[in-house]
Amino acid sequence: MAVEVQRRRLEPIPGFRAGAVAADIKGRGDGRLDLALVAAEAPCAWAGTYTTNRVKAAPVLLCMERAEAGGPIRGVVLNSGNANACTGPQGMEDARAMARLAAGAVGGGEEEFLVCSTGVIGAPMPMERIAAAMPGLARSLSPEGLEEVARAILTTDTRPKTGLVELPGTGRMVGIAKGAGMIGPSMAPHATMLALILTDLALERREMEEALAAAVERSFNRVIVDGDTSTNDTCLFLASGLREAQEGWREALEAICLDLALQIGEDGEGCTKLVELRVEGAPSPVDAEAAARCIGTSPLVKTALYGEDPNWGRILAAAGRSGADFDPERCDLLIGHVPLVMEGRWQGAEAEARAATVMKGARFTITLRLHGGPHAFTVYTTDLSQEYVHINADYRT
Amino acid sequence: MAVEVQRRRLEPIPGFRAGAVAADIKGRGDGRLDLALVAAEAPCAWAGTYTTNRVKAAPVLLCMERAEAGGPIRGVVLNSGNANACTGPQGMEDARAMARLAAGAVGGGEEEFLVCSTGVIGAPMPMERIAAAMPGLARSLSPEGLEEVARAILTTDTRPKTGLVELPGTGRMVGIAKGAGMIGPSMAPHATMLALILTDLALERREMEEALAAAVERSFNRVIVDGDTSTNDTCLFLASGLREAQEGWREALEAICLDLALQIGEDGEGCTKLVELRVEGAPSPVDAEAAARCIGTSPLVKTALYGEDPNWGRILAAAGRSGADFDPERCDLLIGHVPLVMEGRWQGAEAEARAATVMKGARFTITLRLHGGPHAFTVYTTDLSQEYVHINADYRT
Repeated sequence: MAVEVQRRRLEPIPGFRAGAVAADIKGRGDGRLDLALVAAEAPCAWAGTYTTNRVKAAPVLLCMERAEAGGPIRGVVLNSGNANACTGPQGMEDARAMARLAAGAVGGGEEEFLVCSTGVIGAPMPMERIAAAMPGLARSLSPEGLEEVARAILTTDTRPKTGLVELPGTGRMVGIAKGAGMIGPSMAPHATMLALILTDLALERREMEEALAAAVERSFNRVIVDGDTSTNDTCLFLASGLREAQEGWREALEAICLDLALQIGEDGEGCTKLVELRVEGAPSPVDAEAAARCIGTSPLVKTALYGEDPNWGRILAAAGRSGADFDPERCDLLIGHVPLVMEGRWQGAEAEARAATVMKGARFTITLRLHGGPHAFTVYTTDLSQEYVHINADYRT
Repeated sequence: MAVEVQRRRLEPIPGFRAGAVAADIKGRGDGRLDLALVAAEAPCAWAGTYTTNRVKAAPVLLCMERAEAGGPIRGVVLNSGNANACTGPQGMEDARAMARLAAGAVGGGEEEFLVCSTGVIGAPMPMERIAAAMPGLARSLSPEGLEEVARAILTTDTRPKTGLVELPGTGRMVGIAKGAGMIGPSMAPHATMLALILTDLALERREMEEALAAAVERSFNRVIVDGDTSTNDTCLFLASGLREAQEGWREALEAICLDLALQIGEDGEGCTKLVELRVEGAPSPVDAEAAARCIGTSPLVKTALYGEDPNWGRILAAAGRSGADFDPERCDLLIGHVPLVMEGRWQGAEAEARAATVMKGARFTITLRLHGGPHAFTVYTTDLSQEYVHINADYRT
């Protein structure tokens, strides 16, 4: 089923209210939205996926603790500006305090609130400012508030990422996400950014967990900006249960996750291009994935993408060091639909010129056919520009 | 034994002559030295290590074939400007022809000559120009010619890399190398650049092979510029056998390899800093190496190095996604001798300011102590600058 994901506007999801305020988490007094809350009118079913990084931020550990407990939740507090990562026992206390403050402001128990944080690693959370902002945050809640939440969670992103699917009968699903750097393959069904997906359907926790893990694996986990996996990556899926579940919700979830993932890639730090990179004909799924991820992470490939240079040697060389089993003399490489290499042989200057033309676009595909088996794997990678270096050399200053 | 490696000048190695000419391999007519020859006066013992990339350039395959055959050699032809990689059966014929041309010019059989190529991948070798240049190359040979060879093999390098060790008794060892990009860990005792080491000692092939593999593993294989492993990486070690072998040659070999490796790091594409990154206290050698390589390859860490930003969160996060087993709450992180994090806790603004001062230097150390066991691993990494992107986005144009 082809699912249409609308990016233009978010519609309310019955059963949820949302809002955001400027809590001045970075202490710059710039009035930027940086603290958000999504509140369910009643305890709701949910599922989450989390970073596979061994260094997990306090809010990630808190969400995992809640998932383990297995109860329904009443809401999610989200903030940008501070990741509450590498903050030790105090960080965990602060994450709990954020849940407690939210529960106090909108009703419910501390254990019914999740926390998502993103921003600088290693700095203590400014809990006094967060506490001071909470009453205003509760007052800001409205059915239309999700757009503001999408803005409040941004860090180096240049624009909010949102997606909406109207299900064929009644029912609706919306998603918001942030992420521009520290986007990399986690090699496991876990998220690599912050994302929140809401629906009004009545779903069971187990099926939500399974569907979310599958959707994240095929979307967020395949976007490579810099290959770094964050300490804070979290994807949450909440269902208010006001409408009967119906066919197609899994497809809608997967479509929203993929669309948000591509929005993250398009807005990657300093990125000018988003490339769908497909490795086909591998002897095993592991070979296909290893080759695709190695090509998609290679600085030499990514700088060539930025330079709009069909430098096929770098692509083959990256596949060659991936550990994937293949014979370079049998490979085909296509840029868009242009065969640049066939059976290991360069197809000449005219083919290269046509490939270079394809690479001038902001979105294109690269296909490497190994002709060694039936397995394929796709990643979405970006180029590596001077601007990426500029952003990340100066991030904290 | 502390071995002093002199970088200032190369002295002749009895039994070898060397030279280089401008063969115009890139067809630009710029008069740049790009074809070199090192010739032994008599068949000599040798050893080599080669890229682990599955995509191996024709000259690498040729050297491996010669190693398999096990005979002595009479010389090595080296060129820059064209890697003769991804060039199919014609590439292999061209590599053989280069060996045959060298044999014809200075005497010996085709099978007694090795070939090393570096440069653009995927372009055919300009064999007519190479053949035309060979007589002049033979005439250029002299005992003092190694400096010119060191210049002729450069690509994006900004300066030649050379090292000399005078052994305690008589006997001498010199090394030359090139490499600035596509420098990455190959995870096996094989080289990751072009390097050539000559000595006048009488050594056995087997002991040369063992010593070279060990030296390369502890030097070239630990330098990370961009983490890409080339199709052409080769390190050759030749012994003319005119002087009796003596104690200390293994240490001299290792010292030269490490010194050349550090020269490669210092001259890495766009690099402004060379950082010795040591992971200590890991529960296994694999954990120590995984953490060190993951930190040393992380674009976020490397851009922070460039920005002179003691962004310890990125360092811990990179270790965290490496798969290494450790407890973030027990880690210490030192920049130079400044403890920035102790037992997982940031040591405050003053420590950070001192760490930032250390990072203004061109050479410093970073030490991550995991406190989980006795194992350590060191890599040498560089920063990632806008200049790296500039060089590699424009390399072929």
